[in-house]
Amino acid sequence: MGEFDLIKRYFDRPELRLGPAMALGPGDDCALLQLPPNHQLCISSDTFVSGVHFFADMSASQIAQRCLAASVSDLAAMGATPAWFNLCLTMPSADACWMEHFSQGLAAKAGTCKISLAGGDTTRGPLTISIHAMGWVPVGQAITRSGAQIGDVIMVSGSLGDSAAGLTIMQQRRDAKDTLSQRFYDPTPRIELGHWLRGKATACLDVSDGLVQDLEHILRASGCGAQLNVADLPLSDELRAHLPLNQAQDKALNGGEDFELCFTLPAELVNDAQAFSSAQNLPLTAIGRISGTLGCRIWGADGSLYAAPKGYQHF
Amino acid sequence: MGEFDLIKRYFDRPELRLGPAMALGPGDDCALLQLPPNHQLCISSDTFVSGVHFFADMSASQIAQRCLAASVSDLAAMGATPAWFNLCLTMPSADACWMEHFSQGLAAKAGTCKISLAGGDTTRGPLTISIHAMGWVPVGQAITRSGAQIGDVIMVSGSLGDSAAGLTIMQQRRDAKDTLSQRFYDPTPRIELGHWLRGKATACLDVSDGLVQDLEHILRASGCGAQLNVADLPLSDELRAHLPLNQAQDKALNGGEDFELCFTLPAELVNDAQAFSSAQNLPLTAIGRISGTLGCRIWGADGSLYAAPKGYQHF
Repeated sequence: MGEFDLIKRYFDRPELRLGPAMALGPGDDCALLQLPPNHQLCISSDTFVSGVHFFADMSASQIAQRCLAASVSDLAAMGATPAWFNLCLTMPSADACWMEHFSQGLAAKAGTCKISLAGGDTTRGPLTISIHAMGWVPVGQAITRSGAQIGDVIMVSGSLGDSAAGLTIMQQRRDAKDTLSQRFYDPTPRIELGHWLRGKATACLDVSDGLVQDLEHILRASGCGAQLNVADLPLSDELRAHLPLNQAQDKALNGGEDFELCFTLPAELVNDAQAFSSAQNLPLTAIGRISGTLGCRIWGADGSLYAAPKGYQHF
Repeated sequence: MGEFDLIKRYFDRPELRLGPAMALGPGDDCALLQLPPNHQLCISSDTFVSGVHFFADMSASQIAQRCLAASVSDLAAMGATPAWFNLCLTMPSADACWMEHFSQGLAAKAGTCKISLAGGDTTRGPLTISIHAMGWVPVGQAITRSGAQIGDVIMVSGSLGDSAAGLTIMQQRRDAKDTLSQRFYDPTPRIELGHWLRGKATACLDVSDGLVQDLEHILRASGCGAQLNVADLPLSDELRAHLPLNQAQDKALNGGEDFELCFTLPAELVNDAQAFSSAQNLPLTAIGRISGTLGCRIWGADGSLYAAPKGYQHF
């Protein structure tokens, strides 16, 4: 089966077109896309390498879900509405069974995120997936990393550390189906939360390399510091049951790929956030404050300063 | 050096910002990009794998030039104005010398094409480059593959087969600097020609997998056939000097990656095309006609039917 037959067979599925329409979809030199008036394009690209970002022998459906969710999460972190994505799939050979499962997982996640496949490339080589995720946001309303103000409350959605714990479980047993593993292979981009935060949060990002490391990006871009309380970190019941408290807290501080949103909110909006949290059944937890002292200071439950290990380093 | 230092050091260069401005450039979860009013976004993604699309031991500068030019060529084929690109660079290690040369080549080509780097990803893994090229076109003016009409003249820009011949030369000698090799490692996207063809050409694409194979896309999308004359194929003096005529013609018909434009033009516009060709010093050659008989029939100089071998197959 040639490249063009492959694309037709596995990527021409209606579930991959549940997002915004396209002026011209896959199949030409370019796709043609039109934004709503007075909106800006949000674009983010991510590469996922077999053996680095996922296990080669994970199910192809899980690989697809995970890669697309991680990509869409960057759109969520800007407050954007997901619209389209391009998929660059490099694989050693065209295995029909693998492709079928991959395209099923991709379609399931694309349908949930209401994002349409606009095009891409399939090439032969070591298994590598690049996703270019595109969305839109009203002009001037994107939430960047650079607006955090002294006194803002630092909040995170959901629970932290689950994905890192799930990764450890899956290193032992690839077909693990428990909640922690699922957080690793099927993360949920916080799209609705991102929308809600527009015009409210002063800074936002998604937790991909570890809370402490990612929060540093906000602090550097905003020219401020943070005071965090370890005791306030949101830990899931599953993580608490799986690990001793101090190890669970380590995962929450430094484990990557939870794809929860970490954002800074003026203190007077925290009550609104709690109302949104209840309505959406999505925990939003205050974990600290933005301060004028540069750097991130993390306080243990006993009042001692916590020495933060490093998050994920790519090189 | 970590990922963020790498990006800062090698990809934060002014030559990578000579294209349209960005509302928000690299460094946040997403880039924010704004189109001119009444324009559509054109996007195309391409992946280039070491050992498949380029030689791993080519100069890093050549690798970068070649990948970016091939990506921008897809924008040219739609008549689009290049604007921004995202770069996903996967590499086994962060080699400072290689990175410096890669970023120099990238900057040189980006400057020529007036396209700005909007973001991307750097990851560890087998050397693979994925580029997501973005441009714009006035609403409804993009040139697709599907509008060719019976009687249209089929034309190509520049000369064909050079890149395929250059590839063969570089297989023997990586540091070859002759014209044919240069056509392989430093192709020129036909951006101005693409602009000129808007509102004139009925169909257009860039020759990436070989003329015959690529022309088939136009024929299938437009529901028509083609009659080509082998004797009319534009062959460079260098290609004629390098290969016997029949081999040179084979390269022109089936050699990929010349990144010339192949387009169909109503017969009454051919004179205008020749005037543009002279003004731009870019050969535009009529090589055949669109016909009502499906498929591509290729006629030799002696009036016999030419059996076309296959172009590049990815799998």
